[in-house]
Amino acid sequence: MVEQFIEYVEKHQNDFIERLRKAVAIPSVSSDPNRRQDVFRMSEFLIDELKALGAINVETRDPGQQDFHGTPLPLPPIVLATVGNDPAKKTILVYGHYDVQPALLEDGWNTDPFTLVENDKQQLLGRGSSDDKGPVLGWINVVEAHKSLGLEMPVNLKFCLEGMEESGSEGLEPIIYQEADKYFKDVDSVCISDNYWLGTTKPCLTYGLRGVSYFHLTVQGPARDLHSGVFGGTVHEPMTDLFALMSKLVSPDGKILVPGIYDQVRPLTDAEEKTYDNLAFEMHELHDAVGSAINIHDSVRGVLQHRWRFPSLSLHGVEGAFYSPGDKTVVPARVVGKFSIRTVPDMGLDKVTELVTKYINDEFNKLNSKNTMKIVCSHAGNHWLASPEHWSYVAAAKAVERVYKVKPDLTREGGSIPITLTFQDALKRNVLLLPMGRGDDGAHSINEKLDRSNYVEGTKLLGAYLYEIAAAKAE
Amino acid sequence: MVEQFIEYVEKHQNDFIERLRKAVAIPSVSSDPNRRQDVFRMSEFLIDELKALGAINVETRDPGQQDFHGTPLPLPPIVLATVGNDPAKKTILVYGHYDVQPALLEDGWNTDPFTLVENDKQQLLGRGSSDDKGPVLGWINVVEAHKSLGLEMPVNLKFCLEGMEESGSEGLEPIIYQEADKYFKDVDSVCISDNYWLGTTKPCLTYGLRGVSYFHLTVQGPARDLHSGVFGGTVHEPMTDLFALMSKLVSPDGKILVPGIYDQVRPLTDAEEKTYDNLAFEMHELHDAVGSAINIHDSVRGVLQHRWRFPSLSLHGVEGAFYSPGDKTVVPARVVGKFSIRTVPDMGLDKVTELVTKYINDEFNKLNSKNTMKIVCSHAGNHWLASPEHWSYVAAAKAVERVYKVKPDLTREGGSIPITLTFQDALKRNVLLLPMGRGDDGAHSINEKLDRSNYVEGTKLLGAYLYEIAAAKAE
Repeated sequence: MVEQFIEYVEKHQNDFIERLRKAVAIPSVSSDPNRRQDVFRMSEFLIDELKALGAINVETRDPGQQDFHGTPLPLPPIVLATVGNDPAKKTILVYGHYDVQPALLEDGWNTDPFTLVENDKQQLLGRGSSDDKGPVLGWINVVEAHKSLGLEMPVNLKFCLEGMEESGSEGLEPIIYQEADKYFKDVDSVCISDNYWLGTTKPCLTYGLRGVSYFHLTVQGPARDLHSGVFGGTVHEPMTDLFALMSKLVSPDGKILVPGIYDQVRPLTDAEEKTYDNLAFEMHELHDAVGSAINIHDSVRGVLQHRWRFPSLSLHGVEGAFYSPGDKTVVPARVVGKFSIRTVPDMGLDKVTELVTKYINDEFNKLNSKNTMKIVCSHAGNHWLASPEHWSYVAAAKAVERVYKVKPDLTREGGSIPITLTFQDALKRNVLLLPMGRGDDGAHSINEKLDRSNYVEGTKLLGAYLYEIAAAKAE
Repeated sequence: MVEQFIEYVEKHQNDFIERLRKAVAIPSVSSDPNRRQDVFRMSEFLIDELKALGAINVETRDPGQQDFHGTPLPLPPIVLATVGNDPAKKTILVYGHYDVQPALLEDGWNTDPFTLVENDKQQLLGRGSSDDKGPVLGWINVVEAHKSLGLEMPVNLKFCLEGMEESGSEGLEPIIYQEADKYFKDVDSVCISDNYWLGTTKPCLTYGLRGVSYFHLTVQGPARDLHSGVFGGTVHEPMTDLFALMSKLVSPDGKILVPGIYDQVRPLTDAEEKTYDNLAFEMHELHDAVGSAINIHDSVRGVLQHRWRFPSLSLHGVEGAFYSPGDKTVVPARVVGKFSIRTVPDMGLDKVTELVTKYINDEFNKLNSKNTMKIVCSHAGNHWLASPEHWSYVAAAKAVERVYKVKPDLTREGGSIPITLTFQDALKRNVLLLPMGRGDDGAHSINEKLDRSNYVEGTKLLGAYLYEIAAAKAE
């Protein structure tokens, strides 16, 4: 039956591209209030598609209103849909989003961003092609294939589609918690297709994400900004203290200098070390991505381990200081240094805050400054690590081998995808990240694309994954 | 004759306040293009006053146009005027400015900023009362007194009045150089009344200013801003390097860490040390000015020496980094740290740049970073030091004793007044800074004021100073 499905996808790929063309034509930019109507229009497009394919139950949840710089804006609905409800089958929840990043031709796009264009490299160019309309439609294509073929779906599918992902998923989290025992009650596992292959040649399964703890380090001195001519040399300047403190956080080669941080990092075992063999990534891909040969580590293994499984600390900026071009001789009265730590297992959020707070306080005391200092963690999101031995991962790996004839890379990511943790925490179920697009798709850049092959083989992969789940259950 | 003059000023003080009221009523804010017409109107007011008093020659020079963010704006004229041209007398050039800082009632003024109001402390409140309309009119009052009394002026006076001082004196410098051998040919000395007493109780003569050398320290890494989740820990981050370098410039207690800087500083002699005895300044005045007890030095002597005669280094900000409220996990691609050094005799501008450049390069090399670094001096203005033994200072000191019955403080300032150096360099003449207002006048703040006594006694002082010059010449 999976063969029939795969054949159908191969044959009907141009129809699927038509579906993607229609979706890309709706400029559902969630960050632009003038496009909010289009985000709603995109939700209706999906609801219509799902209803037409006989999803037995299409519902929406209203996340309410957004406070957009003081103006209330209605939030687009969470679209929930169910395909099949056979208690004998596993139930897989798929998450995706139907909003997109902003895009303007004048940003440097070669073609109109909201008109899907296939170039001579068989790449489908358009905003949202890869992030995340292609993958969302991939699931719908799977349902269409089964309906057209008169085939029973191998599992029950539930959809959860949101329209605010590119704007912080506003309003989604409470709904997931509310529906955990209701709409999502029978879910056995969650699959999210909203990330990318490590490189451009080999599919991957993603089983880990780093967390992030963000800090605000405030130094306050005078009651108001001062003139450096009149006061320079006579008063303790907050900027001097701030730079002294922030320079002690991380070394130029990326080592975190906060004592105790590395004690919390799970040791690298031989078994884990082996997972870094043969990953489809080369150093030039890092250089290309950053536009410069500024790698700290000389091996690909070193790069990926420091992206995925070691913590890092970055200095982001200073609030309250002079930031414009030109010269200004101000002594800022109150400055807030911003930095964050990317966290990994087994670092505890509270422990990280405790270590940073103690260290910064100790270092500030050494300065003998008369200024006042405050360090707070403004935001903390946990790291996430799933087991690649879980049946959902095993099924996905088999599906990759069936469709692509290779074993997938097992990857993690350096950034965070907060919704992953939310699903895990709210539903207490395994979450699999199963990407459709390639590492060079340019999801948030100009000329976003999804290769035709990734869309077509990706649709096959999503379906094959469901068959492998059903097969595993039957064993 | 000086007694007659002083009596006249005492008697006619309310007329002089009327003159100041008319001047304050013209909102000649040079930084606001919508007020540019008022700046011109203010120049006409002064020209009319000078002509009415029989200045033998009132001319203007046109500095041309200003490029205001792409829009050309006409610059207000430089007003030149001559009172007396007796070759047997000394010729004193007085400089002042007729533009003012911005001021809005809603900034927190207690009264309309452009309506002169005398409060119950006999303070004349209004924008420009002290900076610099009061002093400019002080000179005009002196001329009026002589004309009314039928008295001959003790010296020849030349005026040079500009309308762009609060906006960088745009267009003035070339005119001073052009007129050095022409309109300013016979000038023997220059007097500027555009600064303030050290405190609130005792007049001063100001004979020194610090210079300033401003630096831009650029670190460039990736070709574009990066996401700290994806790249944190794998690439050399420009912010890390920048903070490492800038933290090595100055210690929390204000010591400049650039090797060799202090070798250039003129040693403090016993004679100079004595000039710091009995200065009218108390520690609470520093605390009041900055709104916090963050003094580095415990003695007034230490505070003033570090304001006036030792160099200082301040960190001003970072261009290119995150500076808004909130959290953003950006790794900035290119950041420019801004800092400046206040310079003093005998520091050479080129030597300062050389020492800073070498030090920063050495420190950057120690970082072993793959980023690129560039350090440039974006602007350098020299320090200035006049001799308090010059006849112009001696005359001013005697005039203070005559009017105020005290010996003036001999002060320097920590900031720079670039026009002082321009006059000295262009005319090769001594420059005296002879303030009229007090240290708490709030020149650039809300509720700017000039005490009635400072305006009246200050007018007497300016006239008495001219008499002392004439008397000294006669000796």
